[in-house]
Amino acid sequence: MVTRAYTSTDNITLTGFMGTGKTTVGRLLAQQLNRPFVDLDEQIEQHFGKSVAEIFADEGEPAFRLAEIRLCSQLAEQEGLIISTGGGALVNPASRHALTESGPVVCLTATIEEILARLHGSADRPLLPGDAAEQGKRIRDLLYTRRHAYAAIPLRVDTTGRTPDEIVDALLATLAGYEEAAGMTRIPVAAPDGEYDICVGEGLLEQTGTLLLNRGMRPGPAAIVTNDQIAELSAAPLMAGLRTAGFEPTLCIVPEGEAHKTLETVADLYPQFLAAGLDRKSPVISLGGGVVGDMAGYAAASFLRGVPFVQIPTSLLAMVDASVGGKTGVDLPQGKNLVGAFKQPALVVIDPDVLHTLPAAEFRAGLAEVIKHGIIGAPDLFTALEEHGPTSMTHLVIDAVRVKVEVVEEDPFEQGRRATLNLGHTFGHALETVGEFSLRHGEAVALGLVAAANMAVELGRCPEELAMRIRNLVDRMGLPIQISGYDTNAVLAAMRYDKKRAGKTLRFIIPQALGDVVMIDDPGEAVVRRAVESILIGREKIKD
Amino acid sequence: MVTRAYTSTDNITLTGFMGTGKTTVGRLLAQQLNRPFVDLDEQIEQHFGKSVAEIFADEGEPAFRLAEIRLCSQLAEQEGLIISTGGGALVNPASRHALTESGPVVCLTATIEEILARLHGSADRPLLPGDAAEQGKRIRDLLYTRRHAYAAIPLRVDTTGRTPDEIVDALLATLAGYEEAAGMTRIPVAAPDGEYDICVGEGLLEQTGTLLLNRGMRPGPAAIVTNDQIAELSAAPLMAGLRTAGFEPTLCIVPEGEAHKTLETVADLYPQFLAAGLDRKSPVISLGGGVVGDMAGYAAASFLRGVPFVQIPTSLLAMVDASVGGKTGVDLPQGKNLVGAFKQPALVVIDPDVLHTLPAAEFRAGLAEVIKHGIIGAPDLFTALEEHGPTSMTHLVIDAVRVKVEVVEEDPFEQGRRATLNLGHTFGHALETVGEFSLRHGEAVALGLVAAANMAVELGRCPEELAMRIRNLVDRMGLPIQISGYDTNAVLAAMRYDKKRAGKTLRFIIPQALGDVVMIDDPGEAVVRRAVESILIGREKIKD
Repeated sequence: MVTRAYTSTDNITLTGFMGTGKTTVGRLLAQQLNRPFVDLDEQIEQHFGKSVAEIFADEGEPAFRLAEIRLCSQLAEQEGLIISTGGGALVNPASRHALTESGPVVCLTATIEEILARLHGSADRPLLPGDAAEQGKRIRDLLYTRRHAYAAIPLRVDTTGRTPDEIVDALLATLAGYEEAAGMTRIPVAAPDGEYDICVGEGLLEQTGTLLLNRGMRPGPAAIVTNDQIAELSAAPLMAGLRTAGFEPTLCIVPEGEAHKTLETVADLYPQFLAAGLDRKSPVISLGGGVVGDMAGYAAASFLRGVPFVQIPTSLLAMVDASVGGKTGVDLPQGKNLVGAFKQPALVVIDPDVLHTLPAAEFRAGLAEVIKHGIIGAPDLFTALEEHGPTSMTHLVIDAVRVKVEVVEEDPFEQGRRATLNLGHTFGHALETVGEFSLRHGEAVALGLVAAANMAVELGRCPEELAMRIRNLVDRMGLPIQISGYDTNAVLAAMRYDKKRAGKTLRFIIPQALGDVVMIDDPGEAVVRRAVESILIGREKIKD
Repeated sequence: MVTRAYTSTDNITLTGFMGTGKTTVGRLLAQQLNRPFVDLDEQIEQHFGKSVAEIFADEGEPAFRLAEIRLCSQLAEQEGLIISTGGGALVNPASRHALTESGPVVCLTATIEEILARLHGSADRPLLPGDAAEQGKRIRDLLYTRRHAYAAIPLRVDTTGRTPDEIVDALLATLAGYEEAAGMTRIPVAAPDGEYDICVGEGLLEQTGTLLLNRGMRPGPAAIVTNDQIAELSAAPLMAGLRTAGFEPTLCIVPEGEAHKTLETVADLYPQFLAAGLDRKSPVISLGGGVVGDMAGYAAASFLRGVPFVQIPTSLLAMVDASVGGKTGVDLPQGKNLVGAFKQPALVVIDPDVLHTLPAAEFRAGLAEVIKHGIIGAPDLFTALEEHGPTSMTHLVIDAVRVKVEVVEEDPFEQGRRATLNLGHTFGHALETVGEFSLRHGEAVALGLVAAANMAVELGRCPEELAMRIRNLVDRMGLPIQISGYDTNAVLAAMRYDKKRAGKTLRFIIPQALGDVVMIDDPGEAVVRRAVESILIGREKIKD
């Protein structure tokens, strides 16, 4: 990972697909920062003395690409430029590398529909001949070809539905995060008691110490709560980075697994915090998945009536789900998460590098929540998963986290919209209960997403085509869309028990379109039954 | 207790000492509420056809008082009046009773200095002849004579330093509390996550249910956390009132004493809450002193990630100290209050009636915090204790609570001014530690107040006369001003240990004047030593 921080003499390069506004936005940004602006295509046109379309026609694409590569290499030697590249320029790894070395490179993105609308009537696009249907297909193909190249650029700004001025604002915010650590994306979260940052970037684990100092944390004792396995895999870079920044980290090990998410385990942490010399301003750092985070967060919320909490999720599920919302807690014999606190972290550090250490099944389970967030509020993320699979962990996490941030910011104490995050969970929880937690949470949610989509179709709220896309995507990500060995009546009974307990009606979140889910109460016994049956295999056999 | 609520046809009577602005304020209030105004003295002057001074001179005080009594009785039969009485009118219990029956009676108060300033140059005060010194003495004597009569009026508004318009605003706020329950004083507290009320009034215990309903609480299951002894003394009226209001209260008993203020005791509460059927909106009600409140509050903060917390302090110490500030928690073997939460209550109910069940030594210990609050911010309270002793529990509690409310509102997270509440505590904590908690907290604080005053004198920050007043008052309230059997060096060592632990300098709060305390850091070993020595008896013997 490139760790050099961004300075005012660095170049800033904008790239991205055609129609994402690279030139317009680049020119505006240059004006605003009072820096020289260079448009790569324009320079090449001047060099050849003809238009890009003419160069393609007369000289051929290879000549154009060669000119691009030469120019990128020249520009990378200079300083302080704002550079807009053509959409294909940074597909070449050498060019990408050279410009990345000379400063932040940002990929502008937009939905295919938006790109098509923006390009409508444009004649000077050599790679985009034909009518709208052909163009749509061509764009999809090109995006697919370039997916790895674009995914390799960690900084990204979505331009869909935004004016050039708004895009420049978003760009400046992204660059501010980059100033802290190259390649880092900073997602600010407005929480009830102040703002905190979710910092996402490969290799960020060892920069946690610096990130803490930048947020006014005082060097001194710090506790890292983790389990043995994760400590072995990921504690070393974290501890090294903390020490470099002046912290004195102590590992506090908790036993692995939800069975140990208890008051007793948390009670064992407090004396360790005292022995580590923590005071009211010392951070408790969680390094682990949801279970570790829940316990560490609750310990941080209650030790000395609350010390700063830093969350470093190491599972995909924890990254996209548990890192936003401030829920911490432990289980009682009587039920899950019955004791806990809302504790907002001082900082969340997400290093997608650690996902490489995750078992495949656990990674897949995490994808269920990613798909869920795609359906709730990130159609692009959903489409990208459909078309390219999980190409860039960094982008996948950023997009999924942003959905949750947006929903939770609107409803920090679970009064309204936050309920939509339960998409798939009414079914999922019942399956987990009936299966006595033999299913992974993500697997149960995946089945729940399918059941919710099927229910939405039956209620006439969702086109069958969308339900099919959801089923296909869940299936393609290696997650179950049907399951055997579960009894319909048992699942229905588990749902009703949950409902009674909450003193509420039986509530479902169902999809109407990508990015559009609604809440429905008590859709009727028959409808619920058929939705449950739609994800169970061989139920007749069990009934007999 | 009078439980009839205040309605718009009730009379509103203003009384209070001369110079507190009864007539001016009464006239303004009548204008604002568009109600007829009656001035008792004016009516009597009309009746006799001469001024009050002339009536006193010609007819004698008894004739005047008789007229007052008759008039009060007549006015009490009427409705919707705003009545200002003479300062002595409600000394007569029958008059006080009659007017109290006809609506809220509010006693206006002011400091003696303010009264003297207001009366300066006034000739028409038959009870106030002579020069300023004589008048001061006469006012003190009169206030002393009337102390029980004024104390019997639960509603009070301080007029010191306030304009008539400001006094009317304060009056209307007081009357709003009265609307809920006759005789109740409502003290609103601005907390970080919203406002809550401290309701003070005799007999309020059985009105808790209604007070909760008035604050939007839904009837349903409720937990009362208390210990056996307090349950026996005070649970019955609370439970009865809750049931009348539609709540289903369950007693959750914790063992008595600080030794049981542990994670284990709190862990035992959660299953009881579940068995009682509590959900996220059900209140956990603490009925007890500081220990019970700390545990119940922490359980309420953590059960289901936080349920509403209602605090009913039953000791004087808990009333004036623990009911404001939101601190909850438990002890660990390693130290006190090491685990906990800041949990603001939804409501605090203070029923001074329960103080009658308090052991005398415990009541006296609570007075130490009352004296402390008097020194920090309520000179009147201090003077009243000096002159009349603890006459009215209701007023004493209200005045002391108000000091803490004001300080904590300014500094909810203990960043600055809140430290002044530690007046006497640096010494006190050390004494508690060295004595292995054989001293009551209040006794240790009392000694700490004396030591802090002595230190202030030595540093030239405080006149010896004030230190003497503090010593005398502490002594008069039955609290220790010196103690034997403690070693100076041990006390000093305990202070240094505390200091090291907090990573801070040795900090003292010292009085400069009544209502004016300051924070000083590290006054020097010799100064601290002499302050400690000033409260220890027979130390030479121990040293030998």
